[in-house]
Amino acid sequence: MNIFTIKKSSGKKRRGEIQTAHGTVETPNLMIVATQGTIKAVSALDLCEWGSEFIIANTYHLYLRPGLEILQEAGGLHKFMNWNKTIFTDSGGFQVFSLSKLRKFKDDGIIFQSHIDGSYHKFTPENNVQMQRAIGGDVMMVLDECMEFPVTHAYAKHSVARTLKWAERSRSEFLKSSSLYGYSQSQFGIIQGSTFSDLRRMCAEELAGMDFEGYAMGGVAIGESKEYIRRVIDMADDMMPKEKCRYLMGVGEEDDVRYAVENGFDIFDCVIPTRNARNGALFTRNGRMLIKNAKYKKDFSPVEEGCECHLCKNYSRAYLHHLFKAGEMLGGILASEHNINYYMRLMKEIREGI
Amino acid sequence: MNIFTIKKSSGKKRRGEIQTAHGTVETPNLMIVATQGTIKAVSALDLCEWGSEFIIANTYHLYLRPGLEILQEAGGLHKFMNWNKTIFTDSGGFQVFSLSKLRKFKDDGIIFQSHIDGSYHKFTPENNVQMQRAIGGDVMMVLDECMEFPVTHAYAKHSVARTLKWAERSRSEFLKSSSLYGYSQSQFGIIQGSTFSDLRRMCAEELAGMDFEGYAMGGVAIGESKEYIRRVIDMADDMMPKEKCRYLMGVGEEDDVRYAVENGFDIFDCVIPTRNARNGALFTRNGRMLIKNAKYKKDFSPVEEGCECHLCKNYSRAYLHHLFKAGEMLGGILASEHNINYYMRLMKEIREGI
Repeated sequence: MNIFTIKKSSGKKRRGEIQTAHGTVETPNLMIVATQGTIKAVSALDLCEWGSEFIIANTYHLYLRPGLEILQEAGGLHKFMNWNKTIFTDSGGFQVFSLSKLRKFKDDGIIFQSHIDGSYHKFTPENNVQMQRAIGGDVMMVLDECMEFPVTHAYAKHSVARTLKWAERSRSEFLKSSSLYGYSQSQFGIIQGSTFSDLRRMCAEELAGMDFEGYAMGGVAIGESKEYIRRVIDMADDMMPKEKCRYLMGVGEEDDVRYAVENGFDIFDCVIPTRNARNGALFTRNGRMLIKNAKYKKDFSPVEEGCECHLCKNYSRAYLHHLFKAGEMLGGILASEHNINYYMRLMKEIREGI
Repeated sequence: MNIFTIKKSSGKKRRGEIQTAHGTVETPNLMIVATQGTIKAVSALDLCEWGSEFIIANTYHLYLRPGLEILQEAGGLHKFMNWNKTIFTDSGGFQVFSLSKLRKFKDDGIIFQSHIDGSYHKFTPENNVQMQRAIGGDVMMVLDECMEFPVTHAYAKHSVARTLKWAERSRSEFLKSSSLYGYSQSQFGIIQGSTFSDLRRMCAEELAGMDFEGYAMGGVAIGESKEYIRRVIDMADDMMPKEKCRYLMGVGEEDDVRYAVENGFDIFDCVIPTRNARNGALFTRNGRMLIKNAKYKKDFSPVEEGCECHLCKNYSRAYLHHLFKAGEMLGGILASEHNINYYMRLMKEIREGI
């Protein structure tokens, strides 16, 4: 079943809609990250009010804490965190790669040590699908092997072969199982291959044959330069199925998002809006504002003139500067609201520009 | 000018109103603490919506950060933090005593080292009044000398004598100066004397002669047992002017507040509602709930049945437990809202019971 419809296109750019059991997501769009089943410093109800249509949670984190048994007893993540719109869940392959103290890739799965208590766990393509069934997101991602950057072509080729085998097993497990909560779920494949276009192409073609509901470019924005990120973006339109939703994972810098939309991507996810906010970096039409900078000490204007968020309508730069200098939680809370609203507005403008 | 009116009394209990340039405060009532010009984890506009009528900020903290020049440029603390209801400001005498690395009480004032950067500063009764003029709270407190507990009678007698001299100088400075922002401010005297009733009585009588707009019992709840706290509460009705507002500083445990209301106190301030919230201790009709406790892991009921706060209407104990276990900011945010609402309701019930 295709959950994605293109409403309008212009060159490689596409304006479309993702339809899930929990609503419609207009694209291009960016998911706010809710790794542990919460948007950092933000209530799900507030995020909903600000117009966000989807979030992404993480299987690695939720499996370890609170654990799948609790999510199942709650009736799935939507109910547990009181978010009634669309949820994507990442498989956690990237988090095993980036957070776990110890990890061992075997052909049948990954053995890893929890970053919380050091306990040992194993993800296989099959149990990972079942975990994402228990979480109950509307769209799940396949388990893949993430590579560092840079890697040799030989290593990447070997890794892509494993990722493809796992994708096939994931798809098979997905197709023979069903949702636990009475609504349908979808599954996206992930294209790997580092910056090697022959491997990315081969991976994309093989995955296309498995007929996923959507496709993602993975293993991007993991520390490589913008030039390399764009090299992968450049490959996408040509190798990813046109009629399916195209997801660029982990990318969220405004210029990269704009560039990727120009090149045919539909959706994104990134920690930047919320993480930067907590560090005092605010996005505005006039560029990034580092609010801890001394020049804002006596600046009684709003962070961004014309912005309709709670911060900009009610508080000054000087007050926000004070909150950050004084280590007050309210600083991160207000800044998160602003940055999320900035991205909501940005994506709306990008959509309306197509 | 008396800013306080008794509307109804029953035994020693009183129901009344404080009138300031920024509104009416119904008493008995409890101030939420906004030490650094912010309620921790809560936007001033939200607090206002929850029905809070007054907050208390701190001169020691605001003088050091953001500094009085900035508060003056902002047009006072009300505008700086966007709180348009009543503000009390404490003189900071207690914070010099509890936070400063080094402090030296001299007859003319206190020399102390900032806990932020180690710089040296001096508070005198006179400059402290001017600082509170710059902050612009509706009610300011005199600079006093806080004593540890326990102290000898001889030490306490000497300290009370200094507190009284300072109170006289504070009152004189207050009466010969005026507000910077076009609305009137009031000043409360602080009764000291540790647990010695003769000293407390002498202090209260001397202060009464200076005709402050209200009176506080200070130096209470600084580490002594409940028995000692109540010993001071027991003295109050007999020695504090009846027609003026009576403030018990730093007390906020529910049973102590109830006991103090029974004994003629009108207002309170305490960090308990917000500090306990951030530590995962929630107040409910059925007692304190330590949400990190494992028994809440799979408890999908609300924190408090019937509570109308955002937390209780939208999230479960199990979800809040997860947020605290995962170290997510949203836990402290939601718990703060609940505890503040709990205290708002508690004080309303106490008022309606008189």
